[in-house]
Amino acid sequence: MAFILTFLGKGGTGRTTIAIAAAKKLANQGKRVLLLGQDSSPAFGAALGTALSLDPQEISPNLYAVQLQTATLLERSWEEVKKLEAQYLRTPFFKEVFGQELSVLPGMDTALALNAIREYESSGKYDAIVYDGSGDQATLRMLGLPETISWYIRRFRKLFVESDLGKALSPVIQLAASTVLTNVSFVGDNFAQPTGQVNDLLEQGKQVVANPQRMAAYLVTTNDPAAIATAQYLWGSAQQIGLTVGGVILNRASGADEVTTAFDPLLVTTIPIQSVNDWQPLIDVLPNFQDQASQAPRPIAVNVSERKVSLFLPGFDKKQVKLTQSGPEITIEAGDQRRNVDLPPQLRGQPVKGAKFQDGYLIISF
Amino acid sequence: MAFILTFLGKGGTGRTTIAIAAAKKLANQGKRVLLLGQDSSPAFGAALGTALSLDPQEISPNLYAVQLQTATLLERSWEEVKKLEAQYLRTPFFKEVFGQELSVLPGMDTALALNAIREYESSGKYDAIVYDGSGDQATLRMLGLPETISWYIRRFRKLFVESDLGKALSPVIQLAASTVLTNVSFVGDNFAQPTGQVNDLLEQGKQVVANPQRMAAYLVTTNDPAAIATAQYLWGSAQQIGLTVGGVILNRASGADEVTTAFDPLLVTTIPIQSVNDWQPLIDVLPNFQDQASQAPRPIAVNVSERKVSLFLPGFDKKQVKLTQSGPEITIEAGDQRRNVDLPPQLRGQPVKGAKFQDGYLIISF
Repeated sequence: MAFILTFLGKGGTGRTTIAIAAAKKLANQGKRVLLLGQDSSPAFGAALGTALSLDPQEISPNLYAVQLQTATLLERSWEEVKKLEAQYLRTPFFKEVFGQELSVLPGMDTALALNAIREYESSGKYDAIVYDGSGDQATLRMLGLPETISWYIRRFRKLFVESDLGKALSPVIQLAASTVLTNVSFVGDNFAQPTGQVNDLLEQGKQVVANPQRMAAYLVTTNDPAAIATAQYLWGSAQQIGLTVGGVILNRASGADEVTTAFDPLLVTTIPIQSVNDWQPLIDVLPNFQDQASQAPRPIAVNVSERKVSLFLPGFDKKQVKLTQSGPEITIEAGDQRRNVDLPPQLRGQPVKGAKFQDGYLIISF
Repeated sequence: MAFILTFLGKGGTGRTTIAIAAAKKLANQGKRVLLLGQDSSPAFGAALGTALSLDPQEISPNLYAVQLQTATLLERSWEEVKKLEAQYLRTPFFKEVFGQELSVLPGMDTALALNAIREYESSGKYDAIVYDGSGDQATLRMLGLPETISWYIRRFRKLFVESDLGKALSPVIQLAASTVLTNVSFVGDNFAQPTGQVNDLLEQGKQVVANPQRMAAYLVTTNDPAAIATAQYLWGSAQQIGLTVGGVILNRASGADEVTTAFDPLLVTTIPIQSVNDWQPLIDVLPNFQDQASQAPRPIAVNVSERKVSLFLPGFDKKQVKLTQSGPEITIEAGDQRRNVDLPPQLRGQPVKGAKFQDGYLIISF
């Protein structure tokens, strides 16, 4: 099991620098660390001081680094899809299309990156994975995918089972899924009854995201008001995908009071303007990410006996949070995210009796 | 017809500030300008100095602003889809799913934003649209969508026509397309023979992206080497989607020589450190974006009589550019983008005789 760490914040606040320092710190502690860069430009390698390749390479003791390239990941996945198709569909029609010609569609970058993280995590080769992504809404959409896909399956499964079209579609959806989910056998599995490996994977993915011992995000900001506002927004938005935010890194700090107030009750780590090419002071000041994340507020708490669900939604005011119950589940809309909450059986399908928004928590009673 | 302008560059270089100043400049010239912010956080409104809503509002004479929110755009699209479905499918199965409960999947942010830009452009209400997006690969994936989807249709159409599954899938694909393509009638249209409106739209989209009188990107950088490296990478990557880069905005400049060399032959506009709350000096120094873009190098030139295709790929070296011909078209891979070139009939399907990479141009002979 690897601990997965990522950083959220406005561009230019130093997220990549902090991610590299965090990876170095974890490696210094004897952990086998993989640093994953989403940015395919040379800037990531330049920040690390070494050229990177498409597969992990050890750049210092215990520290491995890899730069993701979507076009290549897509090409590799496609070859897997064609193998699956050959054994699964009577009339394979992807056979004549080659991985080397596939263009990249929006969403593939993050879907393939998430699949790569999953594979690296399950390889057992790493104790920690530091993901240096875009650090914004796109990263949250990516980490929210297991939950979002689970919801789409829950919601559309019944509709599909009842239609001929659904039956015809089933194998194609599975093939499409396998372009972003490699080394997973879809044989014998069925979209209409998603038992087996795919469901297990989604369940595992959700559990990893929800467990601060397995995954945590930290906010990176400077004293710039726009950076603070963005970090606050991402703090609340992270809760919407069930991701624990373990703390705040205040970079190039000129004073911490305002930031400490803005992110209460999170711990704020203050980093003065650091000199270039000297990582050690930065490494020394960073917190123990995994331990600290375990102390941070959890995104959701369900109390079955009191028939209450509490959602932590910091950084939003009451008007920015919307609770609806138009479908079979309750839906919370905030921060351009919609979260459908799959409640335990005792509360599932029950009408909402009341809701209040208090001290950053949305408390729903059934 | 509106001129669409966007800015590419590393986070923190001041892209949003430049986008706002550009919108103000165009409005001062008497153009009706729409400023579109992709970032759903409060940072965008704060930079503008006004709260924004989900529909365009006039914030100063001739200047309209809107902040996109994917969850809302998805909800609105879904209602359209359900209407279409009701008239188009014998057994509608989306009827029972409500727009207010739909979660956002990766890729929807940019796909719905592109659809919004298209609708605003075709409304005839604006002379210029300034799009303040993430300014990175995600923006390029978005603007490359008309070309990418066209390729997927060209490539997969034949395979679909020949299969029963393809026939069954056709209406579903059209419905899926209509969640990100509103107010387009799919009735009577057919994926297997994509005549009519959808094909026209993709064709129009490709023409807009390829015409610097209709759309241009400008690079924003500071003197920071990482910002310069990112801007160079995005410069080359923009060519891969056929988007003209009109010039460079060097923000918070401490000297322009290095940047002028790095981006030769583009014009570099130098902006000294600007004072907060005084837009005028910034507005004054910005170039005439549309005129300048017309003078910049074009991404592709096809010379049928000499049987040569030249692709402008600045910022890459020879090793980073890959030319393959595994499918029916030639594929150029560079900057984590794959471009399949749909050649004119005289060169289509011809084998490549030779290729050389020279002064930033890949020149292919047939």
